[in-house]
Amino acid sequence: MTSHGGFVLWFTGLSGAGKSTLSAALNELFRQRRYNVELLDGDEVRTHLSKGLSFSKEDRDTNVRRIGYVARLLARNGVIAMTAAISPYERIRDEIRGLVQADEVPFVEVYVECPIEVLAERDVKGLYKKALAGEIAGFTGVSDPYEPPRAPELHVRSDRESLEESLGKIVAYLERQGLIGR
Amino acid sequence: MTSHGGFVLWFTGLSGAGKSTLSAALNELFRQRRYNVELLDGDEVRTHLSKGLSFSKEDRDTNVRRIGYVARLLARNGVIAMTAAISPYERIRDEIRGLVQADEVPFVEVYVECPIEVLAERDVKGLYKKALAGEIAGFTGVSDPYEPPRAPELHVRSDRESLEESLGKIVAYLERQGLIGR
Repeated sequence: MTSHGGFVLWFTGLSGAGKSTLSAALNELFRQRRYNVELLDGDEVRTHLSKGLSFSKEDRDTNVRRIGYVARLLARNGVIAMTAAISPYERIRDEIRGLVQADEVPFVEVYVECPIEVLAERDVKGLYKKALAGEIAGFTGVSDPYEPPRAPELHVRSDRESLEESLGKIVAYLERQGLIGR
Repeated sequence: MTSHGGFVLWFTGLSGAGKSTLSAALNELFRQRRYNVELLDGDEVRTHLSKGLSFSKEDRDTNVRRIGYVARLLARNGVIAMTAAISPYERIRDEIRGLVQADEVPFVEVYVECPIEVLAERDVKGLYKKALAGEIAGFTGVSDPYEPPRAPELHVRSDRESLEESLGKIVAYLERQGLIGR
């Protein structure tokens, strides 16, 4: 295990925008470089930490706060803690940023943007069609709000960039900040 | 940060038996030795991971599983993860032990024993009196079961040993097992 400081790499964006794909690829890359890394994916965390929670505003906030709590514990102990939950609300993301930074741990927010029209066209899980038809209540970006970050450390556009380009941007930023070695 | 492998140090025992006192003292000791360490105390974890859960068997199991999940993530990344929740049910403790060991991470169960008569006499929080008077439903050891571990790695008796004696036993075991340096 390489000796280095941990940090939080917080992905946010709509369902299907590419958070899981990007974070899974980075997870692989960090492991190859022998960093301690954990990926807290939205679905996995719902199973382990938040079973029974709904998709109401309050329960979403609780879910995201729990992910933030675990990411914070990991990162302050030298682990690269990646999260890939939609995390739609700015206030909660900023609250977690504040808690992480209070431990003197870097917080890197990655906004994975993709226009909803493109997502609805791709519609990998068939959810956008249903949501746009009004069949899913509380679907982020359609029937529930998504608040884009105003000043994310990183901004990738999955409709315009290839996966490799987005990954390259993220890795270059982390290297420049000295968060990972070159 | 000292380079070493993480492990889980899982305290179990009745309310008031001394889990929090022992684990807090060890937390201090490990920090002084510059280990990465986190203490997941029952109350703190209820706030961050399990707000809203009741003390029913099912919800207790969920709470303990969540603590186990977080301890596992930490320990497999080189952190000493201590837990100090009552964790009354053997099956759940053993389930977590299995998951931790599947990651090739050592799991050290510490049974903190104290006879209920002694606890009721001390009754620091005034809870045993109420529970014995039938005023608290589902109170572990009185109106709810506590299943002692059959083969814990460590067994301390807080009614017969001083805090220093119990700490000494735990530290000596961890040193002997090579989990911490001498």
